[in-house]
Amino acid sequence: LKCFKITLLGTDYKHLTGQDYKAGCPPPENVVNQDNGAATDGIDEEDNVDPWNVSTSNAKGVDYDKLIVRFGSSKIETELVDRIEKVTGQKPHRFLRRGIFFSHRDMHQVLDAYEKNKSFYLYTGRGPSSEAMHVGHLIPFIFTKWLQDVFDIPLVIQLTDDEKYLWKDLAIEECHRFAVENAKDIIACGFDVNKTFIFSDFDYMGSSPEFYRNVVKIQKHVTYNQVKGIFGFTDSDCIGKISFPAIQAAPSFSNSFPQIFGGRKDVQCLIPCAIDQDPYFRMTRDVAPRIGYPKPALLHSSFFPALQGAQTKMSASDANSSIFLTDTPKQIKNKINKHAFSGGKDTIEEHRKFGGNPDVDVSFMYLTFFLDDDEQLEKIKQDYSSGALLTGELKKILIETLQPMIAQHQERRKQVTEETVKQFMTPRPLNFKL
Amino acid sequence: LKCFKITLLGTDYKHLTGQDYKAGCPPPENVVNQDNGAATDGIDEEDNVDPWNVSTSNAKGVDYDKLIVRFGSSKIETELVDRIEKVTGQKPHRFLRRGIFFSHRDMHQVLDAYEKNKSFYLYTGRGPSSEAMHVGHLIPFIFTKWLQDVFDIPLVIQLTDDEKYLWKDLAIEECHRFAVENAKDIIACGFDVNKTFIFSDFDYMGSSPEFYRNVVKIQKHVTYNQVKGIFGFTDSDCIGKISFPAIQAAPSFSNSFPQIFGGRKDVQCLIPCAIDQDPYFRMTRDVAPRIGYPKPALLHSSFFPALQGAQTKMSASDANSSIFLTDTPKQIKNKINKHAFSGGKDTIEEHRKFGGNPDVDVSFMYLTFFLDDDEQLEKIKQDYSSGALLTGELKKILIETLQPMIAQHQERRKQVTEETVKQFMTPRPLNFKL
Repeated sequence: LKCFKITLLGTDYKHLTGQDYKAGCPPPENVVNQDNGAATDGIDEEDNVDPWNVSTSNAKGVDYDKLIVRFGSSKIETELVDRIEKVTGQKPHRFLRRGIFFSHRDMHQVLDAYEKNKSFYLYTGRGPSSEAMHVGHLIPFIFTKWLQDVFDIPLVIQLTDDEKYLWKDLAIEECHRFAVENAKDIIACGFDVNKTFIFSDFDYMGSSPEFYRNVVKIQKHVTYNQVKGIFGFTDSDCIGKISFPAIQAAPSFSNSFPQIFGGRKDVQCLIPCAIDQDPYFRMTRDVAPRIGYPKPALLHSSFFPALQGAQTKMSASDANSSIFLTDTPKQIKNKINKHAFSGGKDTIEEHRKFGGNPDVDVSFMYLTFFLDDDEQLEKIKQDYSSGALLTGELKKILIETLQPMIAQHQERRKQVTEETVKQFMTPRPLNFKL
Repeated sequence: LKCFKITLLGTDYKHLTGQDYKAGCPPPENVVNQDNGAATDGIDEEDNVDPWNVSTSNAKGVDYDKLIVRFGSSKIETELVDRIEKVTGQKPHRFLRRGIFFSHRDMHQVLDAYEKNKSFYLYTGRGPSSEAMHVGHLIPFIFTKWLQDVFDIPLVIQLTDDEKYLWKDLAIEECHRFAVENAKDIIACGFDVNKTFIFSDFDYMGSSPEFYRNVVKIQKHVTYNQVKGIFGFTDSDCIGKISFPAIQAAPSFSNSFPQIFGGRKDVQCLIPCAIDQDPYFRMTRDVAPRIGYPKPALLHSSFFPALQGAQTKMSASDANSSIFLTDTPKQIKNKINKHAFSGGKDTIEEHRKFGGNPDVDVSFMYLTFFLDDDEQLEKIKQDYSSGALLTGELKKILIETLQPMIAQHQERRKQVTEETVKQFMTPRPLNFKL
């Protein structure tokens, strides 16, 4: 069993992270930076978090609390989690209980209105840059499905195949094919076909004059200076990139979907997404009042860690950086055993004596995402920290959690026919009461 | 009868323009600049000609020969006009005979292919900034109809209501309504419904995934630096303006219209347009080979003069700057008598003695656009120059030319029903052989 060691130029881990694992905190906060040779503890450099890059020069990884301040969003406090429980009558999703969704904008307002019988709709999305999706890609969809279920509301899912065409060295046809393939994995998350509309930008732009009207309306009210400031575009960037943010913004407004909302422009939108997508929606919220639309509300998630370490997003192009939705039980087992960064000690003796560190242990982090049982998770944490649980044993628990989860996903995906995909992706009325 | 006088700080007209009227030269070339208080004869300043502004600091007006050099297009020589006559077996249109269409790109190539039975299609357009169209707006359409007739080929007409929304202080609904109203005037020019597709960008973008695919393809291959250089955009411009050029470029490629060309991407496009639109198509021609499409060919017209003088385009917002398609016979008469800049002398005595100057006379210029009879036009020129024809008499000829022309247009427009508009504006197959 090969484990990555924390060497970090002699600095010990606790000193580096400055804290122990705390329940309710997003795991990726407490992570060492493996890419960065030198530890930069104490140097207050800004993290780089935008829709295309997530990196940090800080060995602690992305500082989510700082991000909240920098982005001007609000922390999801226990109070908000409790309120969601009260309003929905459902136990909060583990992503809320454990601070994986850690930041929001206007969620209290959404709940205020909901309590007064004013409903809302959900909008999330994905950039289909490849056929291969990994477990990290499921986070927003797992959470969005839960929101759809507990609030009983309609959902639109944007597949930005046009964005991927603009940013990557790919043909339009490839990006579109990836969108359709990704849609199958998304559908396999269990969304209700009567309440969910999934669309490819290439298709929907060409079939909805109302969507295009909103895109142009947004494009009229955002300057190059603004997108330069928000997204860091340069004069050498193509004009497609420069105008794209309006296309990701447009689904935030209900009249982009007249087939669903019958032309109403005042239906509140709630966007669950990873925090790196926030720049798009800061821009959207800035534009909204100027074009007479309500600002979308947001729920932000932290980043899902790569097997090798947690400070950056996983890469779909590196098969060993994550567990893919197409992995066999054997591949899952091998990848976790071989590549999952361990918080354990070098030898069994040391581990038994000093215990492992769950804060940097990717296997433990993955369990915080996928093991729903709070008590079991807490016991694993205690046992691992005390040294009672060895790295190999911890990995075994993760393997036995992921293997059936992925197998079930594959089974559900197999049942997604072309006909089902077509159903989800056809602009049509949805079944709900506002 | 009030006439505007050429005062121009004592400089005499011939000295200023440097030449007499020559048949076959575009009239607006020989024009004094009324906006500019001081004559700038001899100072070699560049004309400003882009899709939104046409102005010149040169009292001679826009120098079209210089524009050809600057834009890198080719002059329409007698040889090309003769060739068009030979290939089509038709007398060249007066706009060709008189150099009103004066510049081209690749027209010889288009004719080479046509002679080998390889056909092409026409693309022209209009920015619908108001309901009111004036006679100048008809120039590209009159010429395009002639091209459609003599070559027997399909035609697409783009109404850039999205552009007008982006550039003007107008609502989307207004721009779209202007597009539909303008379509009626365009249809009244006599286009063959079986060979012509007219579209509003707001509508067609939202009903053709193929059109949007081409727009994004172009947007991927043009940088902000490029559009900044070509169109003079600044960082304070909205991202809609910055990406718009791709939307005007896309109809240059035949696979933007699968309903017409069945997905073929290799059908040659010929664009008749005013020279100020050339920047869009220089960009288009630059992009075309990089995305695997043929470059569109072009035929450029000079500018139609305002009643008050010829160096700039007319303004649709100034009712007295031109003859509108809705003007009554009386309005036509009054406007011409009151506002048409005259090349005549101050008194009848002087006029009889020295003769008038047709080169700056707007009434005479208008006749070069609308009086088809070459001999009659030549006789008018001679008589006016000799002093035999007085300004009032010249204006009377123009009035009697325009009154029936406009009345007939109004009659034809009245017969354009909503049903007819819908027919023209519905994406559908056209009737032609390639």
